[in-house]
Order: sequence, then structure tokens, then C-alpha cells
Amino acid sequence: MKNRIAQLALVVIVAISLSHPAAAEECIPCHREKTPAAVHQWETSAHARARIGCEKCHGSDHDKIVKGEARVDMKVCGPCHQKAFKEHKASRHGMGLHSGWGCTRNLANRDPAECRFCHEEGSTAPLSGVQCARFLKQTSEMAEIGCNYCHNVESSCASCHTNHNTSLAIVRDPNSCAKCHMGPDHPQWEMWQTSLHGTLNATAGISTGPTCQTCHMPKGSHNVSFGITMSSGGAPYPAKQAEPARKEMLQICSQCHAPEFARKDLARGDAVRSQSLTILKEAEKIIWDLSDHGLLDPMPEQRPEHPLSGRKLVTDNQMLYEDTSHIERLFFKMKKYDYARTIKGAYHQNPAYAHWYGNAELKMDLVDIKAEANRLRERGEAHVAGKGENKAADPAAAAEDALRALKSKVERGAMSEEEYAVEKAKVLDRLKGSAK
Amino acid sequence: MKNRIAQLALVVIVAISLSHPAAAEECIPCHREKTPAAVHQWETSAHARARIGCEKCHGSDHDKIVKGEARVDMKVCGPCHQKAFKEHKASRHGMGLHSGWGCTRNLANRDPAECRFCHEEGSTAPLSGVQCARFLKQTSEMAEIGCNYCHNVESSCASCHTNHNTSLAIVRDPNSCAKCHMGPDHPQWEMWQTSLHGTLNATAGISTGPTCQTCHMPKGSHNVSFGITMSSGGAPYPAKQAEPARKEMLQICSQCHAPEFARKDLARGDAVRSQSLTILKEAEKIIWDLSDHGLLDPMPEQRPEHPLSGRKLVTDNQMLYEDTSHIERLFFKMKKYDYARTIKGAYHQNPAYAHWYGNAELKMDLVDIKAEANRLRERGEAHVAGKGENKAADPAAAAEDALRALKSKVERGAMSEEEYAVEKAKVLDRLKGSAK
Amino acid sequence: MKNRIAQLALVVIVAISLSHPAAAEECIPCHREKTPAAVHQWETSAHARARIGCEKCHGSDHDKIVKGEARVDMKVCGPCHQKAFKEHKASRHGMGLHSGWGCTRNLANRDPAECRFCHEEGSTAPLSGVQCARFLKQTSEMAEIGCNYCHNVESSCASCHTNHNTSLAIVRDPNSCAKCHMGPDHPQWEMWQTSLHGTLNATAGISTGPTCQTCHMPKGSHNVSFGITMSSGGAPYPAKQAEPARKEMLQICSQCHAPEFARKDLARGDAVRSQSLTILKEAEKIIWDLSDHGLLDPMPEQRPEHPLSGRKLVTDNQMLYEDTSHIERLFFKMKKYDYARTIKGAYHQNPAYAHWYGNAELKMDLVDIKAEANRLRERGEAHVAGKGENKAADPAAAAEDALRALKSKVERGAMSEEEYAVEKAKVLDRLKGSAK
Repeated sequence: MKNRIAQLALVVIVAISLSHPAAAEECIPCHREKTPAAVHQWETSAHARARIGCEKCHGSDHDKIVKGEARVDMKVCGPCHQKAFKEHKASRHGMGLHSGWGCTRNLANRDPAECRFCHEEGSTAPLSGVQCARFLKQTSEMAEIGCNYCHNVESSCASCHTNHNTSLAIVRDPNSCAKCHMGPDHPQWEMWQTSLHGTLNATAGISTGPTCQTCHMPKGSHNVSFGITMSSGGAPYPAKQAEPARKEMLQICSQCHAPEFARKDLARGDAVRSQSLTILKEAEKIIWDLSDHGLLDPMPEQRPEHPLSGRKLVTDNQMLYEDTSHIERLFFKMKKYDYARTIKGAYHQNPAYAHWYGNAELKMDLVDIKAEANRLRERGEAHVAGKGENKAADPAAAAEDALRALKSKVERGAMSEEEYAVEKAKVLDRLKGSAK
Repeated sequence: MKNRIAQLALVVIVAISLSHPAAAEECIPCHREKTPAAVHQWETSAHARARIGCEKCHGSDHDKIVKGEARVDMKVCGPCHQKAFKEHKASRHGMGLHSGWGCTRNLANRDPAECRFCHEEGSTAPLSGVQCARFLKQTSEMAEIGCNYCHNVESSCASCHTNHNTSLAIVRDPNSCAKCHMGPDHPQWEMWQTSLHGTLNATAGISTGPTCQTCHMPKGSHNVSFGITMSSGGAPYPAKQAEPARKEMLQICSQCHAPEFARKDLARGDAVRSQSLTILKEAEKIIWDLSDHGLLDPMPEQRPEHPLSGRKLVTDNQMLYEDTSHIERLFFKMKKYDYARTIKGAYHQNPAYAHWYGNAELKMDLVDIKAEANRLRERGEAHVAGKGENKAADPAAAAEDALRALKSKVERGAMSEEEYAVEKAKVLDRLKGSAK
Repeated sequence: MKNRIAQLALVVIVAISLSHPAAAEECIPCHREKTPAAVHQWETSAHARARIGCEKCHGSDHDKIVKGEARVDMKVCGPCHQKAFKEHKASRHGMGLHSGWGCTRNLANRDPAECRFCHEEGSTAPLSGVQCARFLKQTSEMAEIGCNYCHNVESSCASCHTNHNTSLAIVRDPNSCAKCHMGPDHPQWEMWQTSLHGTLNATAGISTGPTCQTCHMPKGSHNVSFGITMSSGGAPYPAKQAEPARKEMLQICSQCHAPEFARKDLARGDAVRSQSLTILKEAEKIIWDLSDHGLLDPMPEQRPEHPLSGRKLVTDNQMLYEDTSHIERLFFKMKKYDYARTIKGAYHQNPAYAHWYGNAELKMDLVDIKAEANRLRERGEAHVAGKGENKAADPAAAAEDALRALKSKVERGAMSEEEYAVEKAKVLDRLKGSAK
């Protein structure tokens, strides 16, 4: 009899342990109706197999869950998935991208002084709530489906892993990377797909054609910045940081390719990057010169304030694509789209992206920028002429304009006080000469 | 002996019934040579299995078939496939899209008075043969491979089902939707493919990642307008029509998601739609103001006639992308491409389409429209100045221009006669004031 | 004992013959470490099965190989793969595309006199080293990842076949064609993928949905120009050459379709091509007229030299997308992108490419070109007015401009000396008339 009771008890215990894990039992019956897909995905997940129930991640405060206050973010996943968590935090994915601005604290070899750009000494709170100008111009709905849909990867493992499905087949597929790494500004997915790597993957499988993960997450590492030699905006890292990264990437390439072949290929990418930067800088200089002479239409002081810099010209990473002039809009496309496509196309061995979608667009936009700059200069001269002034005939007006532009250069730090003194003297000498 | 004859007869009957159905027998031998793919597809189709032969759909008049007069359209398929036929007719697919213009007769909750827009009272014949301005500007070849290649879905089941292959695997695949629902104006296929829904479909199958059909043709329904809350041009439906549609869609979402999550997600789409419409309207107003002041280059009266409206400015759904001015061309892109991508991207949860391909383009095009408007205004002033007039110096000329613009607003219904009287008085008062 | 020795010898021989082929034996142990992917791919290749070792293709001079001087190009593959080699050479792929310029020597029905365009009589050496203007403007790194990544197909079988993998599954997949036949200028891959052919391929397999190879490489032929009726730039072939090509293509179509259906479909493509060329020519004429009147901004003589034509306007296949004017940049897009997408979209039955990505862009770019031309003309008049001249008031200035434009037309061969004399007389008569 005792035996039979013991047997029964064992059966019950086994039955319980084979059924849903504790806590899940409470949730499942109701949620099988309310959120059937979530339940189904969890039931077939590694979590269910490991007896990790609902409560473990969502907590037991149902009110909080319903109000959306019990978000299952990285702080929930981290304690169990420590290796992945640590690698993720050390990578670009772990940067504070939440508001569309990258905190650099986790990147290797950064100057700690850099922190002061966003934080008071000793504080981890950002100086302002959000620090991306484009984000700050968005409605909250557009920010949610636009910026933050991707720029929550810092804090949410579900960005890539989805909520309840733990299948590695999903996250090892480049399609999982596509939903953020695509589009006009950084079409890495598109360019991989139509590169030789992507073609071989599609036609001969992963053993022959590498995926995003093969090169950027080797051996399942969650450090996706492995082997990267430039910022997300495409600014080359200093040699101290770039050289060890390049060595890392070459080790990956050399799993398939002769090291010398790989070295040359990546060096070609570096050269294309540097050449493209030169084209970009030429366009940027044209715009600043126009601004120095007061020729942008409209000038920054005539437009709504830039959320971070006020009524000033901005052409760096905080550049806006709205409330700006036509010529700056052209430059935004060059910088954010053309430049990125050229260099990422070169590093990913995709000729259509490196050349046609990238380099050719970069050069065509430079043609348009030069044409618009010429129109703005002629417009400026016509305005002056309209006011009865004539620069050619009136050396004083020409000198005044030149001095104003020089002053503007000093104020924005593009010219030292010493250089200014020299240039100013030249202008005044010329004016004196013409007066004779 | 009788038995043997009976047996033989049976064998013959069975042989016939197992061979091609009656009528097909005549066609097959010849067409196996002439159109082998059609024959092969039919042979492996549900039609062949159900003994539906060639004649049943194509008729028996071979001359008519050869002349292309025996088109197998919906009238042929409908009598057998009544449920699908009825659902199709009630949906947007069933609208009279043949000529690129939608007849609204089959849509729910429409005001019958609306019919008079295209039809005489009591007549089903359209007032004019074709009613889409863009279509009317096309060559017949371009209309065939362009407009009508998709806009024949009203009458042709083969638009989606192909001609002889009855495989459901084909039409249940989003690829079947792609050939029409793609491109710069409505890239639903592209945005689905790279959304989380598409990613999960590609990596974990249809049980985890829904297709177009999962949400828009639930349970195989042929009513693809199920749950849609706006016109194909993106104009929100009135609440009376939108609310029940939203409920329908939420039921679909809730098969996987918590209803509150789904509600918020779709509401976010509504907000993005409304915000995008505001940007669009700002641009449209700029163009109409230019037109009121006679500043478009060229003005509508200087261009070839609009096929439906003559020499008038058109910025509604009948807007052309040819024989227009540069600024209207920019607006066409905003309206037809940027706006559509923003809102469809938001509803389909694709950040790259909602933001970069959509919202950012919308704002960049607005920058360009404002710049071009400013150029056109300055050009107008220069013309006036060239004629020896000077608005600043000549209040009479300025008043004349203001009155002309007011008149134009009244004529196009943007201002009532009462408002006109008030505004006119203001202009005249100002003129009197300046004369003192 | 003899028997045992004989047995042993046999075992050794068999072992050797089953192991790597001679020569490969030397390379493999080391390269299994250094280039593991290459070794793995070769080991599972048809070459290994046929006992074709490393030396057979790479030679035995290791120094040369390391220096990159032992390139495995078509000359290495050709002697064994003679049929493929011959077909390849006779096709557009076999043309001298290496420098971005096509040698026509292998194309059917060419006038031998054409050779003199690039070669001295009797010489096979090109007159200049490279003959593509766009290529000549590139940095060598961009040329390598841009132009020559695809334009090496003339000499390198590995362009399509990859280096060591002989799998036919790879090269029979349209993905293998994608990496060159994609992008803004010729998106054949994209338009196939979303055409009915591509959809059926994706959903029902190759027996129902044909691939690039089905139509352009029938029965594995390496002559990819089979059935093509126009140059790679989209210029229609003369009837003598086009007619037999059309017959070839119709034979392919007729394997699935009724011949009359196929004939009409391709004829529709021809019509779209011819209509699109008319739009293109209208834009080209506008640009040449501006140039004749000295109104381009900047004029060719004010810009860096064109690498092949010097300081002259170029709008043919050697047109540049850099160091040009805004209006020419617009035309470049029309010609190279819009026109190509329209006609290739029509021939590949893709409505989104034929219409929206093609024809609509063609027409929108024409709108922009006309607007820019008008601005340039007004700018020209303002310049003249600024110099105190006034064409309307000063018939002599107007006549001078007209004569300059006529002279320019004669010089560029757009007008005969006889026509010039007639037109010149008219201008002078008009001048005399106004003087009365």
C-alpha cells in the first residue's frame, strides 16, 4: 500500500514537472484565449523546455503588466544570459541608442573626457532628455515607429530575438537583421543579399555563403562591433583603435580567403572611404562658404531653431532634413545616403551599391550642389544690385562682404584670430588699391 | 459473352473517365504542341481532377478564341466560384479599376448620389469611356503593360490565380501580391518582407509570421478590403465606415496579439496618417497660392490640356506627372510616393519605410517645394520690376495682384463670396491708407 | 608472396587514385590551413571528381601565383570547356567589356568597318588604353569595386561560376545574375523577381516559372545575347540583325506560350521602346539647343576636360555623371536609368518597373529638364540685359545670338552647310526688316 502511494505521488510529481512550469499554470488557461500566439511560441521555446514560466520574466504583478510597466527588457534577460549580455553591452548595439544618439561609454579606447559632452561630471544622467536633433523634431508616434523601433536595441533583447520564440534559426538569419539594417541610409541587408556572399548563401547554403552573423557575430558572439574600423556615421577610427579591429576582421575573412586577398579587399574599402570623404568635404565647404557670405536661402537665423544648436548652420551628425535650405537638403542626402552606400557597398563587395547607388549619386549630388551654389551666388549679386549696390563697381561693398565672411569663419572656429588678421589686412589693402 | 461485352464497355467507360474530360480530348493533342505549358498546368490542376475541360471555360468557337474574343474573365469563373466572386466584387479588388479609376458601387456605406459623378441617372455606362487622367495620357502599349496590367483585377481572376494553374500555394504566397503591390507608390510587398511579420515568415514559417493573406484575406476570404480604414489614395474613411472596419482588423490582430497592443499599434498608424496629411496639405496650399498669383511656371493655361479638367490646376487624385511644372512634380512625388510609404509603412510596422522612405522624404520634398516657391515668387517680382512696376513702391500694383489672387480663390471655391467681400475691402483700405 | 606484393601494390595504386589527384597532393596539406574554403569547395567539385588538381589551372610556379600573376582566366578554362567558351565569346558577355567599352568583333552581322572606330587598320590593340569615359574618371579602387567587378566577365569564367565551386545549382539560379544585373541602371533581377515569371518561380518552381537562364541561356547555352534586339544601351538593332534575333526569342517563348501571344507581347515592348526614345530625344534636343546658345551652366568649355572628347558637350554613351551641369545630370538619369527601366520593364512584363520606375520617371525628369531650361534661358536674358543689351529692343544682339547658334549646329554636324546658308539668310533678312 505504501508502495502504491509512493508510486502515485511519483506519478503526480512527474506529471506536474512534465506539464507547465509553476506560475505559467496560472497564466496559460486565460492567455491561451487572449494571446494565443505568445502562448504557442512559449510552449515550443527553450524557456518552456527549461521550465522558465511567465512569472520569471514578466513578474507576478498583473496590474503592472497590464499597464505596460513590467517591460521585459535587458535587465530581465541579462542575469541568465550573462555572456551575451556582456558582449552586447560592449558592442555598438549596447550603446545608448535609445534616443537615436550613441553613448560611447562601452566602446573601446574612448577618451573619458568625451562623456562630458552629454553628462555632468560623475553623473550618468544625460544633460538633456534626448540628444538626437532629428528625433527631437519627430512626433512621438513617428519617433516610435521610426527612430525607436530600431534604436531600442540597447535595452531590448527582443529587438532581434522576438518576444517568446527562442528559435536560433530566426536570429541566425540575415532577415532578422534586415528590419533595421536596410533602407536608403544603410542598406546592408540589400547589399549583402546581392553580393557574392549573399548569392552563394542563397544558392549553396551557409557553408559556402556567409551571413551577417558569420562575419559580424563570429561563434555566436553578441559583440557586433567586432572588426569595425569606423563610427556608425562612417568616420574612420584613429589608428590605435582601427588597427586591432582590422586584425580581428582579417581573422574572420581568413577562415575562407587567403589573408593577402582579404587584406587587399578591405584596404580597397578604406581607400574608397577616404576618397568619398573628400567629395563630401568639398560639398560641405561650399555650403559653409555660402553661409559665411549670408547666401543660404533661408539662412539659419531665418528658420525654426535647431533643437540642439539654435539658429546655427549644422552639417554634422546632428544635421536635420527639415526646416533647412534646398542645398543643405541635397547635402543631407550625400552625407547620410550616398556616402554610406558607397563605403558600405565597397566593404560588402557590392558593385551596384558601391558605384551606382553610392559613388555615382555622390558625384551627381555634387553637380547639383555646385549648380545651386552658383544660383545662390548670382541671386546674392542680384539682390545687391537691386539695392543700388554693385560689387564690381563698388569696392567698398565687396570689401564689406569679404570681411563679414572672414568674421563668420573666425566665429565658427574655421579660422584662427591670426589668420583672420592676415586675411583682413589683405582685404583692406585691396580696397585701398582700388581707391587709388 | 454478354458479360464480356459488358466488361469491355465498362473498361472503355472507365478509360474515358480516367482520361481527359470530354471536349479537352479534342484540344489536347494539338495544344500539347502549341501551348505545352498551358496543357501541362491544366493537367495537374484541380480543374482536370474535377473533369473541367477546355471548352467549359474557353467555349467551343475556335475562331473566336483565336481572335482573342473569348476572354476567360470573371464572368466565366463566377458561376462556379460564387462565394469568391461575391467577396471579390464587394472588395476594393472588385471596384471598376479597369481604367485606373475606382467605381465605388460595391463599397459599403456609400452615398448613392456619388454615382452621378460618373454616370447619368439610371445608367451604368460611364459618362466618358475612361476616367483616369494619367491613364488617358498614356500610349495604349504603356497603358497595357503599365496601368491595365494590374488594373484588370476587377474582371480577371487570372490577375492573381494565373491562367491554368489552380495551385493554392501560388496565390497564398505574398509573391503573388508583389507584382502589383510594389514599387515607389505602394511598396506593401517590400515593407512586409522586411517587417517583423515578414522576417518571422521567412525564418519560422507561416504559423509564426503572417502573410498578406493572413491579415487581408482571413480564412481565404476574397474581400481584400476587410479592415481597411482609408481610400486607396490614403484619405481616411468617415468614422461611420472606419469604425466597423477597425473592429474587423483588430479581430485579426488579436489572433496573435493582446487586443490592447494591437489597438495602440493601429492608432499609432492613424496618428502618423493624420500628421502626414498635415505636411501634405501645407505643400498643396503653397502651390495653390502660387497659382492664385499667377506664379507657376508654366501656368496651367500655358500647358497642354488636362484630359479631364482642361487648363486648370489639378492636385487631387487626378493629378498628372507630365505636362506640369517642376513644383507640381515635386508635390506629385510627395503625395503619391512619400505620403503612401509613410502611412503604409506605419500600418505595416516597417521603420525604414515609415521613416526614411516616407516621413523623411515628405519633409525633404517640403524643403524643396518651399525653396522653389521662393524662387518663383522672386521671379515674379523680377518680372514685375522688369516691366517698370515695383510692388513695394507701387501700392496700386500690389493691390491689383492681391485682388487677382482673391478672385482666383473665390472661383475655385476656396473662399466664399462673403469672405471675398471682407478681404477685398481690406485690400482697398490698405491701398487708400498708402495713398495718404 | 608475389601475390601479396601484387595485392599490396594494387591497394596503394587504388588508394592514390582515390585520394587527391596528382599535384593537388602537394598543395592541399598547406592550403587546408591557409585557404580552407577553397580546398573544401574544390574537394566537393566536379574538378576533383574528374581528378583535375590545383596545378592544372593554377600552374606550378608558386611565386607567380603568390604575386597574382597566374590569373585563372578564360584562357585557362577555354581549352577544356570549348563549347561554352565559343558561345560565351560570341555573346555580349564575350565582348571586350573589361574597360567598360564593348568591342563588337564577336557580335553577328557587324560591319567590319566599325572596327576602325577603336583600332588602327589591321591592329587588335585599342587606339587608347581604356575607352570608357566614366571609367577613366574613377579612382582605381572605385573602378575595381565598381566598373571592373562586373566588366571582367569577358575574360573571367569565375564572374558567374565562382572560383572553386563547380555546382550548377549556383549558376542556374537568378541570384548569380543579380550581382551585376541589378541597380538603378538595369534592374533586370529585381524586375524578374517581381514579375509573373519570378512569382511563379518562387511559388511553383522552375517547371512553371522560368529563370533568367530559361530564356537567355536556353539548353545551357553560354550565348546570353540570344534573342536580343537592341544594344546594351537600348539602341534598337537594324532590322537585318533584329529580325533573326526576334525569331530566336519567340521560339523560347513558344515553349510555354501561344506564339501569337508571345509575338504581341514582345511587339508591345518594341513600341514602348520606340515611344520612350522619343521622350529621351526631346530632352536631348533641349540640352543641345541650350548649348548652341551658350546657355548651359557651366558650358563644357568651363569645365574639366571630358577624357575622350575634351571640352565638348557629350550626351551619348560616353556621357559623364560628374563635372557636368545640373540639366545634363537630369538627362543622365533619364537616359541611363529611366529609359532602361521602362524598356527592360516592358520586355520583362513588370508593370511597376515599366510604368512607375520607368515611364513616369522619364516624364517627370522631362518636366524638370524643361523647367531648368526655362530658368537657364531667363538667366541668359538677364545676363544680356545686365550688360545693357536687350534682345527684344536690340535686333542686332538677337541676330548675333541666332547666328552663333546656327554656327554651332553646323560645327557639330547637326546642320549641313546648305541648311546653314538658308537659315543664316533668314536671320539677316529679319534683321534688315527690323531696321526699317
